Amino acid sequence: MTSQLFTHDVQHTLDIAGIFVFALSGGLLAVRKNLDIFGIAMLAEVTALGGGVLRDLVIGAVPPAAFTDTGYFFTPLAAAVVVFFLHPEVERINWTVQSLDALGLGLFAVTGTAKAHDYGLGAVASVALGVATAVGGGVIRDVLANEVPSLLRWDREIYAVPALAAAVLVAVLIAAHALGPATGTAAALVAFVLRMLALRYGWRAPRAWHRIGSRTSEE
Amino acid sequence: MTSQLFTHDVQHTLDIAGIFVFALSGGLLAVRKNLDIFGIAMLAEVTALGGGVLRDLVIGAVPPAAFTDTGYFFTPLAAAVVVFFLHPEVERINWTVQSLDALGLGLFAVTGTAKAHDYGLGAVASVALGVATAVGGGVIRDVLANEVPSLLRWDREIYAVPALAAAVLVAVLIAAHALGPATGTAAALVAFVLRMLALRYGWRAPRAWHRIGSRTSEE
Amino acid sequence: MTSQLFTHDVQHTLDIAGIFVFALSGGLLAVRKNLDIFGIAMLAEVTALGGGVLRDLVIGAVPPAAFTDTGYFFTPLAAAVVVFFLHPEVERINWTVQSLDALGLGLFAVTGTAKAHDYGLGAVASVALGVATAVGGGVIRDVLANEVPSLLRWDREIYAVPALAAAVLVAVLIAAHALGPATGTAAALVAFVLRMLALRYGWRAPRAWHRIGSRTSEE
Repeated sequence: MTSQLFTHDVQHTLDIAGIFVFALSGGLLAVRKNLDIFGIAMLAEVTALGGGVLRDLVIGAVPPAAFTDTGYFFTPLAAAVVVFFLHPEVERINWTVQSLDALGLGLFAVTGTAKAHDYGLGAVASVALGVATAVGGGVIRDVLANEVPSLLRWDREIYAVPALAAAVLVAVLIAAHALGPATGTAAALVAFVLRMLALRYGWRAPRAWHRIGSRTSEE
Repeated sequence: MTSQLFTHDVQHTLDIAGIFVFALSGGLLAVRKNLDIFGIAMLAEVTALGGGVLRDLVIGAVPPAAFTDTGYFFTPLAAAVVVFFLHPEVERINWTVQSLDALGLGLFAVTGTAKAHDYGLGAVASVALGVATAVGGGVIRDVLANEVPSLLRWDREIYAVPALAAAVLVAVLIAAHALGPATGTAAALVAFVLRMLALRYGWRAPRAWHRIGSRTSEE
Repeated sequence: MTSQLFTHDVQHTLDIAGIFVFALSGGLLAVRKNLDIFGIAMLAEVTALGGGVLRDLVIGAVPPAAFTDTGYFFTPLAAAVVVFFLHPEVERINWTVQSLDALGLGLFAVTGTAKAHDYGLGAVASVALGVATAVGGGVIRDVLANEVPSLLRWDREIYAVPALAAAVLVAVLIAAHALGPATGTAAALVAFVLRMLALRYGWRAPRAWHRIGSRTSEE
């Protein structure tokens, strides 16, 4: 099992931390969209767990981990409670939240890729599912909030590329039989650093070519 | 098999009735959104069957019941035909439709929770899947109609809480080895009564705290 | 295995061609919605592969073919690159793209129905999954682009009916033990011809009855 990169306790603590931070972003969007407490809780749940559930359904790991570990299920509810009472404070530490989110992005890209490999998927499919684990919850969050997924919009800093970089690194490490706690952590940190640089310097992905002369308003 | 709360015939008749009523709500939204006959049929299908399919994919019950019982498949089409020809009449008996919908909500919360338990899921996951069975179809309906899911909006009467109450009751009954036709029906009726009271008295779930002074327009 | 209608090489070439054309339509919508290169790639992927993944999850064929055949995965990326650099040219040959799309529609309706039958589903469920294979990717594409699915809108030429016709034909052929390369191709061509006629003559599906006197603006 290469997905068990760390001891079970370390892995579980990291997972819970990542789930908590992802859930915060879901809850905050729900508040901005004026949803009620159930909207907050539900967006927190799907943002935090949606990517992993998608991956588990595709690789045939049913029931998905999100439904067998009650810690995974209750953590987003805790985040929803925090957002419910303290959302202005959480918004105020937005930079901290985004930094933690970047750590979660790297973590889930790494563990998602490794788990897909464990279930016998090839390198390309494992990378795709690693990225899906990391970004899938956010896409479901935006769809439920009736917005074009932030991931796809040109006017947002790149989010998929850092996850993709980490996932590709993990696939290379697996092929080289070199995936371990240290190298796995390094791959996650690559995603973290790329995402933080993207936020700091406003890195965006290009839109389609040949749009010279066409002014496009902020969508 | 605790999910076989009633004799097979009674269970099947109840399921078909619940599916029909849920399908009506899907078809009516399609008419309001100006969709064509296929939009009506498709929203009827996903509203009626979407929650159960989601549950079955998660618990590994493939192919989902919606694809193995042709009665389940054709019932929403019958509802779509009714809506196609008689939608003004159906809208006019809206109170009746909403009452039947509340019965379906309770029924699916109960049977969904019991089926998840049958497939070996824990109490918390079974409750979550019972609620998902009851409300999942409506969420998919609203997403396809390009609306913020009614379930999540603060300006709609509570819908998830009644389902949650019934699902929790079923989990408690299972733990106490007391789930049977009578107690299962009672749990479904609790959801029904809560939902009817919510409709009657306009019960809504709260939005996030600390919004004092911020006027929020009806979204 | 009735789904192996043709030799493996022929089947694979047809699949790849169909995936490429479907991916073009996803990429073009992404350009129109002003999404970045990742939005283009992601909409290309989900449009081309979404219907098949949905079918495979429902019939329990996990991991889905889209994740086990790297050709299936990379083909949409090739289409995304084409759209990225050449989208005005691709838009200009819109009639060609729509014709190829109609061929893909027929192909996937036929192979989707046959594959569902191979996995033991009944005639009705196989037809439903054949249609889902053909049109599912486009629905996911439109949901991600935050639009009402084109499939459901009354102001678009019929798209589901041609797929439904081909799927029903395949189910009848299977029941008559007459499904083979020639009859399967004929069923796909029926879908193609119906779709082309719908485009040529502006065939639309009706909206709900009794709307006399109610002006409905183009949505």
